[in-house]
Amino acid sequence: MSDLLPVLRVLGALLAMFALTLGVPLVASLVAREGLWPHYALAMAVTLGVAAILWWGLAEHQRELLPRHGILLVSLVWLATPFFAALPLLMVMQAIGRPMSFTHAYFEAVSGLTTTGSTVLAQLDALPLSVNMWRTFMQWIGGMGILILAVAILPLLGLGGSQLFKAEAAGPVKDTKLTPRMTETAKGLWGVYVAFSLACALAYWLAGMAPADAIMHMFSTVSLGGLSSHDASFGFFASPLLETIAFVFMLAASCNFALYFIALRKGSWRSLWHDPEMRATLAALLGGGLVVALLLWAKGMYAPLEALRLGMFHVVSVATTTGYATTDYLAWPVFAPVFMLLLSGVATSAGSTGGGIKMVRMLILLKQARREMTRAVHPRAVQPLRLGNRVVESPMVFSVLAFMLMYGATVITLSMVLLLTDLDMVTAFSAVLASVHCTGPGLGLLGPSSNYAVLTDFQLWVCTLAMLLGRLEILSFMALLTPAFWRR
Amino acid sequence: MSDLLPVLRVLGALLAMFALTLGVPLVASLVAREGLWPHYALAMAVTLGVAAILWWGLAEHQRELLPRHGILLVSLVWLATPFFAALPLLMVMQAIGRPMSFTHAYFEAVSGLTTTGSTVLAQLDALPLSVNMWRTFMQWIGGMGILILAVAILPLLGLGGSQLFKAEAAGPVKDTKLTPRMTETAKGLWGVYVAFSLACALAYWLAGMAPADAIMHMFSTVSLGGLSSHDASFGFFASPLLETIAFVFMLAASCNFALYFIALRKGSWRSLWHDPEMRATLAALLGGGLVVALLLWAKGMYAPLEALRLGMFHVVSVATTTGYATTDYLAWPVFAPVFMLLLSGVATSAGSTGGGIKMVRMLILLKQARREMTRAVHPRAVQPLRLGNRVVESPMVFSVLAFMLMYGATVITLSMVLLLTDLDMVTAFSAVLASVHCTGPGLGLLGPSSNYAVLTDFQLWVCTLAMLLGRLEILSFMALLTPAFWRR
Ligand SMILES: [K+]
Ligand SMILES: [K+]
Repeated sequence: MSDLLPVLRVLGALLAMFALTLGVPLVASLVAREGLWPHYALAMAVTLGVAAILWWGLAEHQRELLPRHGILLVSLVWLATPFFAALPLLMVMQAIGRPMSFTHAYFEAVSGLTTTGSTVLAQLDALPLSVNMWRTFMQWIGGMGILILAVAILPLLGLGGSQLFKAEAAGPVKDTKLTPRMTETAKGLWGVYVAFSLACALAYWLAGMAPADAIMHMFSTVSLGGLSSHDASFGFFASPLLETIAFVFMLAASCNFALYFIALRKGSWRSLWHDPEMRATLAALLGGGLVVALLLWAKGMYAPLEALRLGMFHVVSVATTTGYATTDYLAWPVFAPVFMLLLSGVATSAGSTGGGIKMVRMLILLKQARREMTRAVHPRAVQPLRLGNRVVESPMVFSVLAFMLMYGATVITLSMVLLLTDLDMVTAFSAVLASVHCTGPGLGLLGPSSNYAVLTDFQLWVCTLAMLLGRLEILSFMALLTPAFWRR
Repeated sequence: MSDLLPVLRVLGALLAMFALTLGVPLVASLVAREGLWPHYALAMAVTLGVAAILWWGLAEHQRELLPRHGILLVSLVWLATPFFAALPLLMVMQAIGRPMSFTHAYFEAVSGLTTTGSTVLAQLDALPLSVNMWRTFMQWIGGMGILILAVAILPLLGLGGSQLFKAEAAGPVKDTKLTPRMTETAKGLWGVYVAFSLACALAYWLAGMAPADAIMHMFSTVSLGGLSSHDASFGFFASPLLETIAFVFMLAASCNFALYFIALRKGSWRSLWHDPEMRATLAALLGGGLVVALLLWAKGMYAPLEALRLGMFHVVSVATTTGYATTDYLAWPVFAPVFMLLLSGVATSAGSTGGGIKMVRMLILLKQARREMTRAVHPRAVQPLRLGNRVVESPMVFSVLAFMLMYGATVITLSMVLLLTDLDMVTAFSAVLASVHCTGPGLGLLGPSSNYAVLTDFQLWVCTLAMLLGRLEILSFMALLTPAFWRR
């Protein structure tokens, strides 16, 4: 147990970094002259205070972190930051006479940081600018955090499909230290993410959004978060041009950011089109959009062009795990919303800001299934499993298998817990899927026009757990529960 | 292509054997003096005629069967026998003035032979004895067929978890010929099944069922089929004693019949309790029953003993994939029916007459997930995957992985097809699960008190496909779709 104290010390350092991000809503509050900035300053001070206590109080426990430390650290970061992110929400909402419970504030913070984008707040248009700025900025931080996590931390732990993420590494990295190459990659990803963000905000602004809206919707677009400052979500703008811009940036953010980084460094974009995961992701998103557009047209709900606009935008929005909406798509034929929600489980790449199972795992599973079928016909045939021009070794396939089981077990267990609270089946299963995939809007009571505030506190905590498990890709969290973890 | 003709010849031989089983409803019809026996005789003659044409018409194509032939044979048998089994249903129902469509008759036959036990027929109590005898006897044949299939055919093909079924074999059998040991095992299983059947019918009769009812319900109990000659299903008898007898035989039939056979031959029953799959199956069934009983009692729906009786009976009935009901459990808290339906996916053993994923696959998956979590913490730890005192090799784990993917893809694809017909989500997904698991009753419109006749013809064909895929354990069917199969 005591050898886990160094982890708390590093947590302190990360919390100090996190405290600085509160500067963004603080500045927004000052610019908008809301008079709410002291709340952000106080929240920042509290966070820095706790960080200082952890850092200096545990100074004697400085040590190099082992893989098991990394697992604990990642879990603690994701449990602790929403707590400190919830502080300013609690204080500001109290100050403006719309007090929130701790459950609601923590839920909103987890929803933000995990880039899920579910909300328990209503009347978003009437909220102070700084609150909406903080909600959407949390998503941007979360999206970045996932990139860094994917490249720098998870591979160290040998977890899940994330090894495959290192598109240029020759094989799984055995070293448990942060290598110079990884630091460089993380910096490169950071650069790509920032460049994407600038381009997105600029495009939104040039296409007609107010500057603040452009920044906030940029935050929730490139992170595939989906929060909006408007109750009508993206429908507020009623602009095909803005929808097209969102469409393009959502598509781009659903692919592996490392591919862009490598392409930029090599100065060649050709390798992008050879990446099997990217091709599959884009094919699933665009193909899915076409299917729904055809369905909407065939059922006579819209004229052809309108069907294409609505089908494409909503499939890409939901399936990339963003969750913007311009209409209540639960009124569509039942196939469409279910299809979109299920697609959100698979139609993003590893190393993107999206959630869910990730396309690379599905590709490995599909190839494995195909190999098994061939083996049933020709028992003596032995083929390696290839993805692109790389061979996928057995440990990777095993790891994907374990992930899928944990994913299935998580979805079913949490849904059954919600059923125990007598929530209806459609709402229960869709709430868990939309949370585990970090998508946001579900089905039943939780469609794009409704709000997670209809759930009880207990039900919200189940969804909060689902969002955290989904963002942590489950395994790293579950590893904490094994006896092996707590043995030295 | 032409090298597949020998398969059709063997199909002829199997159809001839199947034709003889029509003797049972024929005799029942004679005994009950219904005057319907000529229809059964005619159906038998037609089946024998087709069998003769295949056998003698293809006499020059006699050849030893290869694994790929076996896959095709199994699929053809499961497509062709329901066709001939539907013939007497069509003729007799026409004769009594309640004509059925071919879709309904084929659905009913597939539901019978796959031991699913869904029905499109209403007013069961008013049907001729011979019809109910044929419906339930089809289940008994199907249950037997699954045992023989599991032991004698599937292992030859190296398919799925069925290799594990050979509890006493040292390792997967590489030989593609039917070995003497396999014939012996198949005979042994046949013996155990018949002995179980006699004991069950005798127990039902002694406990108060009319002789015909005792025989018919024995047919659908030991096969875990669940069809009944009464609209009220098992609730018709309103007898705790009969429910207890059904409970015991359903539990027994949900375990691996090979274990009984081995125990009998060795004269020792101790090995039974050491089988990890049997222990897990019984624990899931009894534990699940207890959970539902507690829920029914806690929600104040029934007195404690009544809650225990109803909870235990229905969980075991649904989760063993039988599907008898004594009450409309859709009126229970929503957790209970969903839990029972999901449990039916896992709570039967390989080598039992039940359907679903089979417990042994779940055990392998769980152990694999646990191994992965340990590996995340201690990357250098390498442990073999053990089940009982046997080591599960990688190819087996891969095979389970492929099965799970195909299972998931089948459930989702067929459910989505049903959603395209605008069926509601709960009915669509539960219909597919109840069909793929060969359980029978679903949720929504398809509860234990309702009837699959509410579905359209197209929806029934989707369910028919789901039942066939579930019974064939999907992979063997899917293998037919690979290019490798059709290449020499
Ligand atoms: K989202
Ligand atoms: K059944």
